[in-house]
Amino acid sequence: MLRKSLRSWTRPAMLCRQMSVVARSLKYSQHGEPVDVLHLVEDKLTSPQNQQVLVKILAAPINPADINTIQGKYPVKPKFPAVAGNEFVGEVVCVGDKVKNLQPGAHVVPLATGLGTWTTHAVYNEDQLLAISNKVGLAEAATITVNPCTAYRMLKDFVQLSPGDTVIQNGANSAVGQAVHQLCKAWGINSVGIVRNRPEISELKNMLEGLGASAVLTEEEMRTCDIFKSGKLQRPKLAFNCVGGKSATEVSRHLSDRGVMVTYGGMSREPVTVATGPLIFKDIAFRGFWMTRWSKENYSAPERTQMFNDICQLIEQGKFVAPAHEMVPLEKFKDAAAAALNFKGFTGKKFILDMNC
Amino acid sequence: MLRKSLRSWTRPAMLCRQMSVVARSLKYSQHGEPVDVLHLVEDKLTSPQNQQVLVKILAAPINPADINTIQGKYPVKPKFPAVAGNEFVGEVVCVGDKVKNLQPGAHVVPLATGLGTWTTHAVYNEDQLLAISNKVGLAEAATITVNPCTAYRMLKDFVQLSPGDTVIQNGANSAVGQAVHQLCKAWGINSVGIVRNRPEISELKNMLEGLGASAVLTEEEMRTCDIFKSGKLQRPKLAFNCVGGKSATEVSRHLSDRGVMVTYGGMSREPVTVATGPLIFKDIAFRGFWMTRWSKENYSAPERTQMFNDICQLIEQGKFVAPAHEMVPLEKFKDAAAAALNFKGFTGKKFILDMNC
Repeated sequence: MLRKSLRSWTRPAMLCRQMSVVARSLKYSQHGEPVDVLHLVEDKLTSPQNQQVLVKILAAPINPADINTIQGKYPVKPKFPAVAGNEFVGEVVCVGDKVKNLQPGAHVVPLATGLGTWTTHAVYNEDQLLAISNKVGLAEAATITVNPCTAYRMLKDFVQLSPGDTVIQNGANSAVGQAVHQLCKAWGINSVGIVRNRPEISELKNMLEGLGASAVLTEEEMRTCDIFKSGKLQRPKLAFNCVGGKSATEVSRHLSDRGVMVTYGGMSREPVTVATGPLIFKDIAFRGFWMTRWSKENYSAPERTQMFNDICQLIEQGKFVAPAHEMVPLEKFKDAAAAALNFKGFTGKKFILDMNC
Repeated sequence: MLRKSLRSWTRPAMLCRQMSVVARSLKYSQHGEPVDVLHLVEDKLTSPQNQQVLVKILAAPINPADINTIQGKYPVKPKFPAVAGNEFVGEVVCVGDKVKNLQPGAHVVPLATGLGTWTTHAVYNEDQLLAISNKVGLAEAATITVNPCTAYRMLKDFVQLSPGDTVIQNGANSAVGQAVHQLCKAWGINSVGIVRNRPEISELKNMLEGLGASAVLTEEEMRTCDIFKSGKLQRPKLAFNCVGGKSATEVSRHLSDRGVMVTYGGMSREPVTVATGPLIFKDIAFRGFWMTRWSKENYSAPERTQMFNDICQLIEQGKFVAPAHEMVPLEKFKDAAAAALNFKGFTGKKFILDMNC
């Protein structure tokens, strides 16, 4: 008890035993369409105790997986009533008396998944949070734990890549796709992107090449020309697939001997079709990746710390930016959720709830 | 020169400088159907020099890949004119003066692939041959390097199996399938086999269970009952697919979390279809295996020696037998090749050319 008092006394600014905050949260008590089941609810939060931290949420993105979770179509099932949302960047308001490494004013992002983040304030445990530099922009920080980490891990964990190697991906304009282009550019890896044709294809190609893509092709262009034949780009050792169906089959055809295709999404809702010949004679492998699982299994692993350090450093150096996004006030979540749903597939535009509005 | 003379002098029985042998071989000079392009040709063989070994072929099987090679449908392309065939067991007749470890009378099987084995006699290099015990039966020895080794490697190289684990496979009555059942039984691993329904299904199930299968189901039975639900058998960590299409998809559904499906054949000529969900959320992997590649890449590896030792030991202990087979005289190769082709898929019956007839 003496020790506790002493600590309280030496760090008075970090404690907030009498703090009273009302959180406005998007909650749901049954699965369904977000516009139907989400309700803006006010809850009085109790002061953070022990290892707890009171966080003022600054921004929280709407990811496709969040929508699927609300719909009940995702393998992660929340306990009802649940606050929706999985990612955020917040500011520490005050901390319980056993919190060791967080101070008021620090920016934090979630280490744990499924915390419920579409809210103005929340009380989390210190070990569920990661402090990151305030120099990391709000949009980048709010979206750091899912898409950039997915891109990072898929580039690191399946084949050994060296500068000059090539990676190919479909859905190259997705949020993960944009992260892949930027990480590849930073690491000297060639990054070939496949996108669906569209009226504004030139602008899209320019945008992705601006991020670091070595080449961007439509699905038709990919089918009709083999850009690896000339030898300017090496055949890819690694492919990322978030589409499935014919697109995945086409992309996998370009893989080099012993190449690996990693599936992390299934936008077309069609399965991946794998020809027997390349499996056997080229030793192509088809794998999958789920960031949520990796994060749980590597919660405190040094690889995870290294990953966050690397990505934050690139952001601070201006070499990594958030995907195209739009900030939306919490009150307008229904419009944002509907818009997020109506975007057919991944167009790279992400809606981020802005709790400061 | 002195050393050479000394060696010749100390091992006179091994040399055969004046030996003259006429080999009768099945040769082809263009791709096509075996009955059209294979011809029985006589060639006078020169005496083995240096590291060469004159081998009298005792038995050589007709594998599906041999037929495909002759047809030009296999990735291995021989130099014409070529002797057909890839496997054999033979007896050393005599050896060149630099041969170190082979003696006349020794039984040998090929370490190298594509040697051309449908012949009565051949001259090979010592390093292309592996001596095996004369106690290993001719049918077992003649078929040891492809099917049993495929089964062995697929069980060893993709997931770590322990006694009590389960493996599932379609085409469970194929030659590889039969080898899988036997190795699993020897190693305490549960082996579930899927076969197509047929009039003599009971006899087939009995035969495979006799070899060591823990359970044999038809494709319909697999679809309608989940034998892993009761918990008597653990969900398989590993699946082998030589069929493709719906059969592969069905088999892959039974895999445990982090399970691996290894494709080594494509009997149905349909691709493997991989649902996105299990790839991502169950971390199922789809791989391929080609024995020819493994053998080339591990030509002198200790794992290869260990593999042959293990398999030969099981054969000598009566725990591993050749697949159902029929010995056919070399002169009747056309009938055998036609019969091998007409067997729809793998029924487990292998034709073996018997050079002693």
